[in-house]
Amino acid sequence: MHPQDRPQVTLRVIADEAGVSLATVSKVMNGRPGVSPSTRRRVAQVVERHRDSRRPSHRRPGLLVDVLLNEVDSLWAAQIIAGVDQVFQSSATTLALSALHGNSAYAATWLDRLETRPCDGVVLAVCELSPRQHLRLASRGLPVVALDPVGGVEIGVPTVGATNWAGAVAATEHLIAQGHRRIAHLAGPTTIASSQARAAAFRTVMAHAGLPVPPGWLRFGAFDDASGHRETLALLDESAAAGLPRPSAVFAASDRQAMGVYAALHSRGLRVPHDISVVGFDDLPLTPLSQPPLTTVRQPVREMAALAARTLLRLIDGEAIEPPRVELATRLVVRGSTAAPAPTRPTRAGASAR
Amino acid sequence: MHPQDRPQVTLRVIADEAGVSLATVSKVMNGRPGVSPSTRRRVAQVVERHRDSRRPSHRRPGLLVDVLLNEVDSLWAAQIIAGVDQVFQSSATTLALSALHGNSAYAATWLDRLETRPCDGVVLAVCELSPRQHLRLASRGLPVVALDPVGGVEIGVPTVGATNWAGAVAATEHLIAQGHRRIAHLAGPTTIASSQARAAAFRTVMAHAGLPVPPGWLRFGAFDDASGHRETLALLDESAAAGLPRPSAVFAASDRQAMGVYAALHSRGLRVPHDISVVGFDDLPLTPLSQPPLTTVRQPVREMAALAARTLLRLIDGEAIEPPRVELATRLVVRGSTAAPAPTRPTRAGASAR
Repeated sequence: MHPQDRPQVTLRVIADEAGVSLATVSKVMNGRPGVSPSTRRRVAQVVERHRDSRRPSHRRPGLLVDVLLNEVDSLWAAQIIAGVDQVFQSSATTLALSALHGNSAYAATWLDRLETRPCDGVVLAVCELSPRQHLRLASRGLPVVALDPVGGVEIGVPTVGATNWAGAVAATEHLIAQGHRRIAHLAGPTTIASSQARAAAFRTVMAHAGLPVPPGWLRFGAFDDASGHRETLALLDESAAAGLPRPSAVFAASDRQAMGVYAALHSRGLRVPHDISVVGFDDLPLTPLSQPPLTTVRQPVREMAALAARTLLRLIDGEAIEPPRVELATRLVVRGSTAAPAPTRPTRAGASAR
Repeated sequence: MHPQDRPQVTLRVIADEAGVSLATVSKVMNGRPGVSPSTRRRVAQVVERHRDSRRPSHRRPGLLVDVLLNEVDSLWAAQIIAGVDQVFQSSATTLALSALHGNSAYAATWLDRLETRPCDGVVLAVCELSPRQHLRLASRGLPVVALDPVGGVEIGVPTVGATNWAGAVAATEHLIAQGHRRIAHLAGPTTIASSQARAAAFRTVMAHAGLPVPPGWLRFGAFDDASGHRETLALLDESAAAGLPRPSAVFAASDRQAMGVYAALHSRGLRVPHDISVVGFDDLPLTPLSQPPLTTVRQPVREMAALAARTLLRLIDGEAIEPPRVELATRLVVRGSTAAPAPTRPTRAGASAR
């Protein structure tokens, strides 16, 4: 018989069988005070009896796996959690979530806590563990899988990432193919491998195409909208101060940065894509709803997280993992934020675009 | 001596002290095969020796608390997680995250799993537990705190919510004060208390102002952008079919719905706020970046989650919680998506606006 087909056990049934009031049942069930120990025991026994009749006959103890993130307050983090959760749901694994919020003291606290409770493995989606902390984690002998944008190969654990290089090549080439010559890149943090790969790909494609990247046109920052906003204003102001025409296109290293770029351009009266084309990176759930809809590089964040989770479960089962590094494909999604550049207007200094 | 001041313990130091290769140390630390038991033990002992010198002398066992969400793939969920995490960080509490994804079978799996591992309490941020499942959870005698938009008071646990009623009153009154008379409301799910409260407030304010709500102008749906998009198109089509002028303002029950409203209006060539004003509810992190920036009701989701977490920790410590229901204030944030309505154009049928 399917569990849903059984008759409902209501609070009323429990109260009647235990010979107490509804209020008393509620108190007992919610662990609230004001009930004598003997009454509490009687109610608990009735509840237990009803529960036992529904309990599966065999059950293997579940795993408890830690997921460590830099932050939990973004759609990027939400996608990571959703991807891991999807795998853990079907494998009776509990997801223990911790975020560092840029504070390495939290990492120490988390490492301390690992010693006080069960932990069967770790999915690392952070870049903020120090080498010492990586070592301390490694010394636990726990299976670990790392997700981009974690630091790099030196930590010696299987890693799941995206083809950051190929994605950034596609984004930059798309802009060049549309006729852009003055392209700036707002990169992510200098410390993050995925950010470095995207910036290097941008630089390489520009160099191959014989296009200059003036000083200040490749700007490292953070992956968030505040950084995209700030760096765009600085880019425009510094270019004007240097007598350079402004860029006709900006490639941002994340969708969230791109939303900051939109806001900054809007505040300066510049239209996307008429005045400046914008490309992002990630293709998170709300990105297609941006106005204009953002052209971006789709990174399968959720699939990456699911693969990391599956890989970890295989490690926990004692399998050897080959290859130790997997990169899932990225894909350029062209929407409304990119177009051919408008004809160049001379700057005040009369300099022509290069 | 501050831990950061101590000399780094590198993989090289471990390898040298254990008399093995770097590759062997890496294998041992990552739990990979290919190392003899005696070597594995020797390496582990060296690592352990270095680790012991850094271990704090006393440590209390941490708590493990379950957080149950409907979904983990939105900024709303991200804010909930961030708020709980913020409190748990500072109290050595592990956050065990589970999501139901609209599937009540997952709830059964989660309840099964609770019986196989430690759990010190539960933060419920879901509406999808059946009465039977609520009862089963209650029968565990675990402290539980519920967050909006959970079902309601019948589950008999302390609840932290927002002033949904007051927020929706403010949103509707704002539109009326700007001169709108033809206002539609896209509500959330009928089953969710916060959604019901917002819809009832809308209806009440409209009735008080003597403004009609034509059939189909209060539409229940989901809190996501797809629902906002779908219901907006249906609203426009049904109004046109009924010979009604279209609404001059739409109040959406979530920011995410409002983003769907934007996209639907854009697809019909309607401008916000010139043709239709839009108000949302939540004020999530990316909302101020929408174009035009969305007027919305700020709901302190993160603070609500933090308060729920603190309340749960107090329950775990055996405190009695009064009052059992707390509502944090909401606040209307006026941005660029609302304006006075454009002069009414007669419809094809010649009906004037009521």
